[in-house]
Amino acid sequence: MLGRLFSLAKKRAEALGPEYVELWNELELNTAGGKRFRPRMVFASYQALGGTDLESPAYIGAAFELLHTALIVHDDVIDRDFVRRGAPNIAGSFRQRARSAGASEADAEHRGISAAVIAGDLALFNAYRLIDRSGVNDVTRERLLEVMDDALFASAAGELIDVDFSWIPEVPRVDDILAMERLKTAVYSFECPLQAGAILAGADEATVTTLGEFGRDIGIAYQLVDDLLGVFGTEADTGKTTVGDLREGKRTVLIAYASAVAGWDEHAPLFGDPELSDENAAILRAHLVDCGAKAFAEGLARYYANRALARLLEPHIPISLRGELHPVADDVLARVR
Amino acid sequence: MLGRLFSLAKKRAEALGPEYVELWNELELNTAGGKRFRPRMVFASYQALGGTDLESPAYIGAAFELLHTALIVHDDVIDRDFVRRGAPNIAGSFRQRARSAGASEADAEHRGISAAVIAGDLALFNAYRLIDRSGVNDVTRERLLEVMDDALFASAAGELIDVDFSWIPEVPRVDDILAMERLKTAVYSFECPLQAGAILAGADEATVTTLGEFGRDIGIAYQLVDDLLGVFGTEADTGKTTVGDLREGKRTVLIAYASAVAGWDEHAPLFGDPELSDENAAILRAHLVDCGAKAFAEGLARYYANRALARLLEPHIPISLRGELHPVADDVLARVR
Repeated sequence: MLGRLFSLAKKRAEALGPEYVELWNELELNTAGGKRFRPRMVFASYQALGGTDLESPAYIGAAFELLHTALIVHDDVIDRDFVRRGAPNIAGSFRQRARSAGASEADAEHRGISAAVIAGDLALFNAYRLIDRSGVNDVTRERLLEVMDDALFASAAGELIDVDFSWIPEVPRVDDILAMERLKTAVYSFECPLQAGAILAGADEATVTTLGEFGRDIGIAYQLVDDLLGVFGTEADTGKTTVGDLREGKRTVLIAYASAVAGWDEHAPLFGDPELSDENAAILRAHLVDCGAKAFAEGLARYYANRALARLLEPHIPISLRGELHPVADDVLARVR
Repeated sequence: MLGRLFSLAKKRAEALGPEYVELWNELELNTAGGKRFRPRMVFASYQALGGTDLESPAYIGAAFELLHTALIVHDDVIDRDFVRRGAPNIAGSFRQRARSAGASEADAEHRGISAAVIAGDLALFNAYRLIDRSGVNDVTRERLLEVMDDALFASAAGELIDVDFSWIPEVPRVDDILAMERLKTAVYSFECPLQAGAILAGADEATVTTLGEFGRDIGIAYQLVDDLLGVFGTEADTGKTTVGDLREGKRTVLIAYASAVAGWDEHAPLFGDPELSDENAAILRAHLVDCGAKAFAEGLARYYANRALARLLEPHIPISLRGELHPVADDVLARVR
């Protein structure tokens, strides 16, 4: 689905210059890498609810995947990041090409950021178009567009709150962090793709609602695990350095908890220090264990994952759906260990 | 149309915090300001071709206006601009609010840019949704979505080329600059809105094609005039300083022409000097007159405006459409004086 979209776009871009073809190429590379999480969610609920078509859920899954790409690419613009998971992202790649062609560092950065802004716009727009092209009837399309609208609406709000968390002096409360993480990522990654699959399968409103609730809880659990891995995971697990979140001062549930209990004052200066050494990171990590923050976050992740599973016990949820979604929750729980 | 969209969005945003409401508010302010150029184009071709509905062209016009907002807002992100036409833009306004709340300069800038990235995404997405909500039939909707896709596809390519023009050492040729300006602005401001109005009115393909050609030529003429006003206009005319383009080193047809004829070498050091004084700007302006660049750009603008008008003489173009679009070309020509 996405392969066809990109190959058509690249063909069409040829008339407008090689750099534009390269932009589409980079966008494709940045879309292909992921875990295809969102298409999996769409297919899981669609098939478990009796959907048999293969074409339309592929369009909808691809639409959410492209929305994800757009949000990630623009998230990197917001943070002026030129690297993602150890490799140059779109901005990094376009910066590098300009450097090789003789541009100054400032000009090359400008060009890199520009390319990322543009690429994210193209991805966002085409996410929408894929829904329109899915060939579903008017009523279903309207519902799917609403769900995707919900996804972007929530993510935009979450992103704004996240940015504000980075500069306000107080550490936000646990609840506020969970609400932000839900809005920024869980809604568009879990709630909406699961609901979209159900709508596509013609499910009743009660089932769509329950899937939203399952998605919300499992999404929060997933974020909690992600934050835990960002500090305690291995690079092999996460594909990124585990000192990054501590150096950056990322305000997670771990930190919200730690900052509210004894012992934080001595450790606070280490947190958010861009020069944080591996030794001091180890000290900080040990404190997050000792003060109970790690156990708290793990417990909370388990709580949400189990609550998600409990949603599936409601009588209107078909057993097939339970069977399909149980492994999703198990995966999350397995990552807590 | 847009009023309703924004008031609904703001109501919906209330649950997600006051800053998010403010973001929608700022987005609305940034949409309301313009000349409503694109809706005018949609209505002009729609009504001249016999369209009588008032609702659907309002949706389509609003969609193009919102696309314009998205592109402008993200253009400012690309250039890290915090001001547009003398007033704080979205980034500027959000930066200011963070400063007042005690954020450091760097944190406040980060927040401003973030808000602008997010706001542009919301505008882009809703541009698409407005077409979907216009209530037109499936075939018309598909055609309109294609036209809007063309608009963004071209604008993205033009933006990328424009960024590259700013750092490559050579001054681009006149033709390359015209092609870039067409892609970046004229396609989505003239060609596509005119075509959308025609499609909405049920016009035949020949008419839609001719409107695209008219739009292309008049759009290029408009850009040429805009570049002329950017150097020779008064602040009262343009709402921005007329030293800006010269300080920034904006590569326009004026400069492409001047750099290819005698006398440029002495003046080149002034061009793109961020500290350019009013006196030196006057010297540069005088040179652009003396070397023939100004007359050349004016002549070219007249040529394209007249060529646009000639398109309307083709036999399949109804007289009503000629009557509607002639003033559009006259407006452009009037600005050349």
